[in-house]
Amino acid sequence: MTAIRCKIRTALFDARTVTGRWTAFSIQALIIASVVSFSIETLPDLPSKMRTALGYFEGLVVAMFSLEYGLRVWAADRPLRYIFSFYGLVDLAAILPFYLSAGAYDLRTLRLFRILRLLRLLKLARYTAAMDRFRRALSLAKEELIIFSGISLIMLYLSAVGIYYFEHNAQPEEFRSIFDGLWWAVATLTTVGYGDVFPVTAGGRLFTFIVLVVGLGIVAVPTGLLASALGEARRQEKVQECSTNAHSMEDGDK
Amino acid sequence: MTAIRCKIRTALFDARTVTGRWTAFSIQALIIASVVSFSIETLPDLPSKMRTALGYFEGLVVAMFSLEYGLRVWAADRPLRYIFSFYGLVDLAAILPFYLSAGAYDLRTLRLFRILRLLRLLKLARYTAAMDRFRRALSLAKEELIIFSGISLIMLYLSAVGIYYFEHNAQPEEFRSIFDGLWWAVATLTTVGYGDVFPVTAGGRLFTFIVLVVGLGIVAVPTGLLASALGEARRQEKVQECSTNAHSMEDGDK
Amino acid sequence: MTAIRCKIRTALFDARTVTGRWTAFSIQALIIASVVSFSIETLPDLPSKMRTALGYFEGLVVAMFSLEYGLRVWAADRPLRYIFSFYGLVDLAAILPFYLSAGAYDLRTLRLFRILRLLRLLKLARYTAAMDRFRRALSLAKEELIIFSGISLIMLYLSAVGIYYFEHNAQPEEFRSIFDGLWWAVATLTTVGYGDVFPVTAGGRLFTFIVLVVGLGIVAVPTGLLASALGEARRQEKVQECSTNAHSMEDGDK
Amino acid sequence: MTAIRCKIRTALFDARTVTGRWTAFSIQALIIASVVSFSIETLPDLPSKMRTALGYFEGLVVAMFSLEYGLRVWAADRPLRYIFSFYGLVDLAAILPFYLSAGAYDLRTLRLFRILRLLRLLKLARYTAAMDRFRRALSLAKEELIIFSGISLIMLYLSAVGIYYFEHNAQPEEFRSIFDGLWWAVATLTTVGYGDVFPVTAGGRLFTFIVLVVGLGIVAVPTGLLASALGEARRQEKVQECSTNAHSMEDGDK
Repeated sequence: MTAIRCKIRTALFDARTVTGRWTAFSIQALIIASVVSFSIETLPDLPSKMRTALGYFEGLVVAMFSLEYGLRVWAADRPLRYIFSFYGLVDLAAILPFYLSAGAYDLRTLRLFRILRLLRLLKLARYTAAMDRFRRALSLAKEELIIFSGISLIMLYLSAVGIYYFEHNAQPEEFRSIFDGLWWAVATLTTVGYGDVFPVTAGGRLFTFIVLVVGLGIVAVPTGLLASALGEARRQEKVQECSTNAHSMEDGDK
Repeated sequence: MTAIRCKIRTALFDARTVTGRWTAFSIQALIIASVVSFSIETLPDLPSKMRTALGYFEGLVVAMFSLEYGLRVWAADRPLRYIFSFYGLVDLAAILPFYLSAGAYDLRTLRLFRILRLLRLLKLARYTAAMDRFRRALSLAKEELIIFSGISLIMLYLSAVGIYYFEHNAQPEEFRSIFDGLWWAVATLTTVGYGDVFPVTAGGRLFTFIVLVVGLGIVAVPTGLLASALGEARRQEKVQECSTNAHSMEDGDK
Repeated sequence: MTAIRCKIRTALFDARTVTGRWTAFSIQALIIASVVSFSIETLPDLPSKMRTALGYFEGLVVAMFSLEYGLRVWAADRPLRYIFSFYGLVDLAAILPFYLSAGAYDLRTLRLFRILRLLRLLKLARYTAAMDRFRRALSLAKEELIIFSGISLIMLYLSAVGIYYFEHNAQPEEFRSIFDGLWWAVATLTTVGYGDVFPVTAGGRLFTFIVLVVGLGIVAVPTGLLASALGEARRQEKVQECSTNAHSMEDGDK
Repeated sequence: MTAIRCKIRTALFDARTVTGRWTAFSIQALIIASVVSFSIETLPDLPSKMRTALGYFEGLVVAMFSLEYGLRVWAADRPLRYIFSFYGLVDLAAILPFYLSAGAYDLRTLRLFRILRLLRLLKLARYTAAMDRFRRALSLAKEELIIFSGISLIMLYLSAVGIYYFEHNAQPEEFRSIFDGLWWAVATLTTVGYGDVFPVTAGGRLFTFIVLVVGLGIVAVPTGLLASALGEARRQEKVQECSTNAHSMEDGDK
């Protein structure tokens, strides 16, 4: 019994072994399949047979994840610690909506539970070191990101006010208030440019020109900050890894 | 009396103390609330009750800022120096429009005064070191920014002339003059691409292709220059901070 | 006979000699001409004379490439090795569709064979060192590219789900399912912004704003990774070149 | 006489003196005014009085530039050398169209001469060191720029072929041939996204997604190459300047 428990623990918690890698791969595949199934369910005119099949598949996915959760609790060194860890809560959140929705007859609640199924994507976080680096990069550039995001927001707001005053009279339907101006400013300064709202007066176009010349440089700053912070976080990781390796070589840990 | 004055001075002028931080935070919140209220006022079909409430809120904001201004003048070490400092003038500009508009019966002047309320956003400048760095970065890359912005402008202009000649005959309504061409060039070379004007002739499309291939590289240069200048300004700041710290450690100033 | 064979071998396989450069240039020109001819064939209302002329030209191109292939097989040091090398297979793939289509009466197969003619573009790979560097850069940044592409995909997916829930009721025709949401997310987060689908509700627009603020930084990361990896691959190449040169100077190999 | 000639030479050829700077500034202002006048002429429904005024202004500009040209020839150290120098030819090209158009009665030729007036913008090149740096940067990154531009072009072409095959049947009017596909590819991969052509089939949308994921990284490479080459060219300039200064300090040349 203990041998099986140990094997299962290895398979579930240690992605460096062969069985561990296979388990990880299967769980990831199941997450993606469940997400695809979730998307297909939103298709209109879905034949009811298909809908039934997707329902069965959802049941299967929940059964598998419940089994995984149960095994993890059973096989963990300290079950309580796992249950209340970040990943333990995520694993629970991945199956709970299904069980709760069984008792819900209200359509609206059902819908909410359905969308909560996407919390399963968080299960993917277990298999990537990127989240960690992201968090580190964010904390490195935190202060600057806040300041320049603030400046970008003020930039956006002033653009919105400006375009509202230039275009409100010419296009009262498109630029009803400053909030419409904000929508225009977002679509313009990110260079998305849907084309649903755009200036038509000479003043509004000149203003757009100035906003773009001044604004693109400013709006691009936070992206650049994040990119360079990610680079720095990666370099720090490598240095740390090096020294960790240097230490761990003596213990043969890696 | 002197003790209160001293306390108020600390609260208003020194953001490093606890009370100072709370005052700063309250003022910032008030600025943002006032800006949000300004935006809501532009909404069409606003119930008159809401409009009255916003008017009262505006009065409250002005009262608070007037109080702040009065206290600053009273508590400042050298009142005159504060009054004619940049921030002193900004603080005055944040409340003056309200008082001036009280005596204005002309709707147009009233409108101008209303938009001047946005000068309050300048009050935010007091709480950020970013403006300083921005100014430094601009002065570092000034010469280059001017040259390459000039080249970008010429690029834009030539694109405008080109597209005008290619598309004027095919779309006389869309490309009435070179100024319409300029509008197209701005929307295209910044990759916004609203889709209100675009070439339809084979020649115009080929020209657009060439303009984009040559132009995107050129138009992106000023943004890149600003980004690297900001990086340099930050490095300079750190070096300066280091040496300042080294000096101030002896005085225990930081 | 051997002298001719040797000369031909030099002309075909060694682009550093004068004849070799001319052969390379001619083959490249022929590839491009054949691609242009392929494009012209798709023009509607093509006069039948033109169509015939293009057919003859295609025959000529195939004849030339067949001749090249034959000469390469004949002149190669080890013919079999050439035939089964990457470039040998590409050279064969450039002419095979023509011969195979001769025996095909089915229009659909003919069409497939026609598009296979574009495999000729692969022949260009022989004349550029860029492919090599690209492959090196990809292998350098492989792990990071996969991770951040994965995160970008999840970002795209969550945006799609979000916009679907915000806009489905307001625009049931535009946002029929999450797959329509995905199309919107792709067009928006790459800042292409065609303008065929865009949010119209306040909630959807606010959501778009948040998605753009958070997403642009994330979606830009893989591009930045590739750029810096290309730079690194180039530096490695130079170092390698240097040491190769240092070694080869003794042999006079370059 | 010689003294005047010397003064004029200084004013025209040496932008480092006070009079020289004023002359330079006046000429630049005149160029820009002439370009603005050129643009205004294209406005439809221009009152005939305005048109006459613009005609007079054009005459004045030509007179001024003719005077400048004459003075330059007269004051130059070696007149012939100036006449056949790059800037001498540009100065001539800035006035020649006007004199040639006087003898032209054909409307079409007149139009050509009119657009040739834009050659005046080349006169601006005299006053900027940026052109030099640009040329240097281009020669630094020349080989790489060619290779990656080539790859981008192939990328564009393959995208065009792909979208043509996916969308031709669904939108025969929008995607008539591969050339329409190319137009789509240009507007999409540069993220301009006018919205005049876009895929509507599921296959075409999936293809667009893949093209954007793979393509944006590739298309962005040449821009990045140019940016880093400009940075390198600037560094080289500084090093050169430093050593020049070191040398010239002894002669007091700067």
